[in-house]
Amino acid sequence: MSTQGQVITCKAAVAWEPNKPLVIEDVHVAPPQAGEVRVKILFTALCHTDAYTWSGKDPEGLFPCILGHEAAGIVESVGEGVTEVQPGDHVIPCYQAECRECKFCKSGKTNLCGKIRAATGVGVMMNDKKSRFSINGKPIYHFMGTSTFSQYTVVHDVSVAKIDPKAPLEKVCLLGCGVATGLGAVWNTAKVEPGSIVAIFGLGTIGLAVAEGAKAAGASRIIGVDIDSKKFDTAKNFGVTEFVNPKDHDKPIQQVLVDLTDGGVDYSFECIGNVSVMRAALECCHKGWGTSVIIGVAASGQEISTRPFQLVTGRVWKGTAFGGFKSRSQVPWLVDKYMKKEIKIDEYITHNLTLGEINKAFDLLHEGSCLRCVLNTEA
Amino acid sequence: MSTQGQVITCKAAVAWEPNKPLVIEDVHVAPPQAGEVRVKILFTALCHTDAYTWSGKDPEGLFPCILGHEAAGIVESVGEGVTEVQPGDHVIPCYQAECRECKFCKSGKTNLCGKIRAATGVGVMMNDKKSRFSINGKPIYHFMGTSTFSQYTVVHDVSVAKIDPKAPLEKVCLLGCGVATGLGAVWNTAKVEPGSIVAIFGLGTIGLAVAEGAKAAGASRIIGVDIDSKKFDTAKNFGVTEFVNPKDHDKPIQQVLVDLTDGGVDYSFECIGNVSVMRAALECCHKGWGTSVIIGVAASGQEISTRPFQLVTGRVWKGTAFGGFKSRSQVPWLVDKYMKKEIKIDEYITHNLTLGEINKAFDLLHEGSCLRCVLNTEA
Repeated sequence: MSTQGQVITCKAAVAWEPNKPLVIEDVHVAPPQAGEVRVKILFTALCHTDAYTWSGKDPEGLFPCILGHEAAGIVESVGEGVTEVQPGDHVIPCYQAECRECKFCKSGKTNLCGKIRAATGVGVMMNDKKSRFSINGKPIYHFMGTSTFSQYTVVHDVSVAKIDPKAPLEKVCLLGCGVATGLGAVWNTAKVEPGSIVAIFGLGTIGLAVAEGAKAAGASRIIGVDIDSKKFDTAKNFGVTEFVNPKDHDKPIQQVLVDLTDGGVDYSFECIGNVSVMRAALECCHKGWGTSVIIGVAASGQEISTRPFQLVTGRVWKGTAFGGFKSRSQVPWLVDKYMKKEIKIDEYITHNLTLGEINKAFDLLHEGSCLRCVLNTEA
Repeated sequence: MSTQGQVITCKAAVAWEPNKPLVIEDVHVAPPQAGEVRVKILFTALCHTDAYTWSGKDPEGLFPCILGHEAAGIVESVGEGVTEVQPGDHVIPCYQAECRECKFCKSGKTNLCGKIRAATGVGVMMNDKKSRFSINGKPIYHFMGTSTFSQYTVVHDVSVAKIDPKAPLEKVCLLGCGVATGLGAVWNTAKVEPGSIVAIFGLGTIGLAVAEGAKAAGASRIIGVDIDSKKFDTAKNFGVTEFVNPKDHDKPIQQVLVDLTDGGVDYSFECIGNVSVMRAALECCHKGWGTSVIIGVAASGQEISTRPFQLVTGRVWKGTAFGGFKSRSQVPWLVDKYMKKEIKIDEYITHNLTLGEINKAFDLLHEGSCLRCVLNTEA
């Protein structure tokens, strides 16, 4: 029996309040309106941004909400005017939209599409500025325009990437955030060249994806920096060639790296979200050309600083969101690269659980041994 | 009578102590050693960096010294092994060297040659780590590898640009620092494209050269920002199309500019050396691509800060020294552009004095009506 045009009742993990365990609820998911797509989510992973908003530290966090933004699924139905996907298409929801019409998309300089930002920023859909999720008539906010901790979600059509139907959704869901972000930071934002010396601060999923991207770009030295030395063995498999634990040194870590590299690294990446580390990442860069890319998301209100002399003498400070990838155009390309075994995904998945076990998955996220935990929403 | 190989006694303005008037002294200038060039300085201008070191606020400032780094002259004699210039050549001393051999020069990514930095940073020459200037046997430190407030100076051969002998030295001396820096910040560091919206903070010589460079690059709007509205009339002649005085607004200046430009400027330039303004210059940039270039030199110990979100959402923070120009290669090219009337110089020269009037020239530097004061050293 077709569900098209009907309200679907399904399971979703609802964050009723900050920092309280998520609750699996029966949620009503309204049909997609014009320009919207309802997606059956099959697999979703967790990412630190989910944990950040859930913790209550995100001043823009809205509750109750359905978190989740790294997932894959199948289109269940589409609203009026949706032409680029149809029911049955395999898709990855993209928290970074790509409308191809706004001044951001047309600029050719950024992936930060602005079309639906006004709605996704406040947890609703553009069309009527309302949520498609409800429980007993009470609306539940969307999150990042994706809300993938649900068996069904509604997203804007500009936020959905159609992918190869042969791709395993339980793997490629990771291309919805972390892995894509790390690879793109290297390829799109920093544009690392062959022979470069690279430093990576933080060896979680994003840091490892940076290492993989740097290796593919031909970096000659890839220096992993982490306060947990146990991460080095895994990191080697992703391309890290040297490991530095700041705890092993009395000198500031930027000085350690400058000494190790005869003047500094060509590119550095901050993959933690710590403003002190962001400073170290900039200052370990080589005078004249070293470029530092901020990927980690810092807590609200925190600021980065440095002496302006660092920039006047040629260092460049930048940042990246979703690795600079244009989501609808390039996520399918990343999926194809995975299918051709040109990029890793399986190796980032250290745990598999079900949506019902999501609170356990959040606990795992804070353990050093967990990279990505993929949840099966059907269980 | 040839002075080659002889100690020359000439007039120089000596800074005996920080913040005390310079004194015109009879200075002994030793002959150039291997790899060195002795230059008869005919014209020298003053720049804020001279005033900064003279003030005593520069922690690396050494006294007594001979300041000055924006000048032009004629080679008097050359030391052993010097092949690229010979006596009689017209030259501009360059505080930023270009050896074409060090890893900086070879990188193709920066103009910050490192070859003689260890010596120029401590006021001496590389060969014997000593000064060529003395008074009654007491050495007087060099400054920035140039020391142009003297009728004769000795510089490293990698710090001297040979220029068209037809060029008027009393004009092209300005290409030794300020004008070149402003033009280069636009052309080399920011790489402003046609149609760009540009904001310039501080409308002194460097800010006006930025405006001129931006106009040449085809910028569609060039917004001058200064707390002295009297500067606008002059600024118009250099390409500034709009003027904003922060004192006329209650909102932070970055917000004023974002509102004026539907989201922010494409490129901004800080030409003052004020860390609060550096922040505003970054934050008035457009999300997704806006690039801010720091040109001004901040006081020692001061730091820049911002929220990392500014960078994660696509703004880029950079800096420039000597506008990214490779000095020996490109200063002659700038001279040629001036000779072809493609760039202004005369318009920056608001005052002409003699070396003996140098203290008056320093006073003028702090007056809004003075752009550049050129001193005739022969007077």
